[in-house]
Amino acid sequence: MKIKKIVFATGNLNKLKEIKSAINIFEIVGLKDLGITEELPETGTTLKENALQKAKYVYNKTGLNCFSDDTGLEIESLNNRPGVYSAMYSGADCNAENNMRKVLSELKTFQNRKAKFKTVIALILNDKEYFFEGTVNGKILQKKKGNDGFGYDPIFKPEGYKETFAQMSIELKNKISHRGLAVYKLVSFLNQEELGL
Amino acid sequence: MKIKKIVFATGNLNKLKEIKSAINIFEIVGLKDLGITEELPETGTTLKENALQKAKYVYNKTGLNCFSDDTGLEIESLNNRPGVYSAMYSGADCNAENNMRKVLSELKTFQNRKAKFKTVIALILNDKEYFFEGTVNGKILQKKKGNDGFGYDPIFKPEGYKETFAQMSIELKNKISHRGLAVYKLVSFLNQEELGL
Repeated sequence: MKIKKIVFATGNLNKLKEIKSAINIFEIVGLKDLGITEELPETGTTLKENALQKAKYVYNKTGLNCFSDDTGLEIESLNNRPGVYSAMYSGADCNAENNMRKVLSELKTFQNRKAKFKTVIALILNDKEYFFEGTVNGKILQKKKGNDGFGYDPIFKPEGYKETFAQMSIELKNKISHRGLAVYKLVSFLNQEELGL
Repeated sequence: MKIKKIVFATGNLNKLKEIKSAINIFEIVGLKDLGITEELPETGTTLKENALQKAKYVYNKTGLNCFSDDTGLEIESLNNRPGVYSAMYSGADCNAENNMRKVLSELKTFQNRKAKFKTVIALILNDKEYFFEGTVNGKILQKKKGNDGFGYDPIFKPEGYKETFAQMSIELKNKISHRGLAVYKLVSFLNQEELGL
């Protein structure tokens, strides 16, 4: 469910002003908005290290509060590969198509298709570091399904659902996905910080 | 602390799009924005009844998701008056000045100046009703202090602070006030609804 607009039923302009300032509105700014076009460093060996490395890079460069995520697909039969190397799994000229092709080929002989998506978000807020995680269990299909999403979404079917992430609306994916869950924790935290609770 | 802008350190435009749609942005709309200029009905005998009555009125009129608050000042020595009648305590031509004058006059002979501010927010979201409360303890001073805030703020000093609500920044007031606490609960709820958790 998407809540876009909500009415505050008051004729009292003081209350309206107070409530508007109490309800935090996050403005999410992307790197392009800041004129940062270079590739961010990502040389860690864990999702957490990579997320923090990217956030630190931007924080040091801009001084702005900043978060970054790193996400990996861990496949049980492949000893949790591609994991932290998910984005570059198929090597130098990797892209989503080649990455999926490699995974499907490696999994060909395996009955066990269990996999999980993990996201770690690193937040740097006023010089302090915070981390938020989200995980979703699922399995790797035999072939791609769906055109939405990105990365490994077309071959990942989350537990309890019939569609792959690439067949879902962005709203449904956000509700149940690794990244959606991590973002939910991030937002709850930022709301608390904002209100000082 | 006010978080206005936060950078998402990613060069991946798919991730940026997904995160932007996952982080809910509430747009708070006031009655004037909707062309509603009449006084809202407020004939209940409790804060909860009044809050719901106002929210229902606007919901029925506009069909928009909507919340309203009702707030009362309960003073121990006055048997919890003015309570639900806080806004109109000094009668027909009531205003904040006259209301405060009446309270200070009634309290003149009392040693016990303990009071609490209570807010109840009623939310109508997709035809369902929800309530969120916030309370702050404090005491009524002998005379007004400060020029910010509104209503009884100049004579209410919250527990643990040296200033009245009328001497505080809106950010500090929101952190600790009855309304700020109720709003925090409202926002947490809306975030959960949004993400379906």
